[in-house]
Amino acid sequence: MNIDVIFSANEVTKEKVVGKIVVVIDVLRATSVMLTAMKNGAKEIRPFKEIDQLTSYTKDLKGILKCGERNGTKIDGFDLGNSPLEYQPEVVCGKIICMTTSNGTNALVNSSYGKKILIGSYLNLDILCKKIDEINEDLVIVCAGTNGEFSLDDSLCAGEIIKRVKYKTLSDSARSMYMIASTPGTLKDKLKETKHYNFLKNLGEVRDLEVCFSINSKNIILEYRDGIIF
Amino acid sequence: MNIDVIFSANEVTKEKVVGKIVVVIDVLRATSVMLTAMKNGAKEIRPFKEIDQLTSYTKDLKGILKCGERNGTKIDGFDLGNSPLEYQPEVVCGKIICMTTSNGTNALVNSSYGKKILIGSYLNLDILCKKIDEINEDLVIVCAGTNGEFSLDDSLCAGEIIKRVKYKTLSDSARSMYMIASTPGTLKDKLKETKHYNFLKNLGEVRDLEVCFSINSKNIILEYRDGIIF
Repeated sequence: MNIDVIFSANEVTKEKVVGKIVVVIDVLRATSVMLTAMKNGAKEIRPFKEIDQLTSYTKDLKGILKCGERNGTKIDGFDLGNSPLEYQPEVVCGKIICMTTSNGTNALVNSSYGKKILIGSYLNLDILCKKIDEINEDLVIVCAGTNGEFSLDDSLCAGEIIKRVKYKTLSDSARSMYMIASTPGTLKDKLKETKHYNFLKNLGEVRDLEVCFSINSKNIILEYRDGIIF
Repeated sequence: MNIDVIFSANEVTKEKVVGKIVVVIDVLRATSVMLTAMKNGAKEIRPFKEIDQLTSYTKDLKGILKCGERNGTKIDGFDLGNSPLEYQPEVVCGKIICMTTSNGTNALVNSSYGKKILIGSYLNLDILCKKIDEINEDLVIVCAGTNGEFSLDDSLCAGEIIKRVKYKTLSDSARSMYMIASTPGTLKDKLKETKHYNFLKNLGEVRDLEVCFSINSKNIILEYRDGIIF
């Protein structure tokens, strides 16, 4: 299969994803939160690009959790922020989660033209790569990035996926991330000097970082279709 | 100094380069051609984004060479294409070169807001890095890329620059290219499977590839200011 990597949500176009299998990654923290919430029993997740869209959609609905962040912190009046630690079973079980984040939910909505859209992070690496090998069709990995910029935590995750899948013909962007994933050293070694890692560390979210880099801790497959992650 | 890398000409904005030292790279082949032409005695180079702009500018001028490519081949009615092998001393000495290419001249013109804009390629790595260290101010490396896409030949060159400069605080994109440049293996090992390398190889431009990867073969500093490379 041909594999391409897109480095930020802003760079996603219909042309790049249409007819392809798409994996959307926002390691810190949206897709890590999504996997945690669904593993802990949430019914479904609905991503929104804008706060207004989310509040308008949820206005007359019940049994819904309004979730998300701006500048890394919980949005005023929302139920939950963007830390996977908030999404415990007793909080999310059976609930519909409506979510808007700075980068991850944009990446998802922008990827809507994909043939099949899967959720990726370090938390479900092996099961996701097994699924990708089973499907064995052209793949685009969409990294959410940070405010339109390249973010190594996401793109290294793309590299870790590429390292694990069996059959592959790589674009230059995919090849470069595969090369980085193939260098010696732990994830922490490679990421401890990066921007988003240190942004969250400075916000005091050190436990979040540990959770989001726990490889294969939430081995489930999530798909995004018709506005819903299930 | 802070170092950032921009992966394609299309991603350059005023905000990203204003007040910064900028190095523009289009290894295959525009900046390699520029260094070759100036080393071989050309008087100056004027880059243009569009063919129309160039032909309109040069209409009533004499002693000018019209140069450039689209889809890798010489533009109809132009004097020279985009192979460094064409830019021999007997052809270019004392001449003003007006040039438009698919990616490199866009990257240059888009970078015009930079405080100081330098031309980079593998051909002038060491002297360029010495200059960057002397200036020791915040640096943005602009990779031309290929039609708006990431191109590893350019971004690996950015990594080779970062590897050589002394004082550095890296953005995520800069860090990732530094990591790739720091892996073992020759340039050819790292690039032989990449898209633009194979595009030129398939066009029969194997000698161009050898010339464009000859590290330090044209050790000169070129600057772009007020529309002129000198």
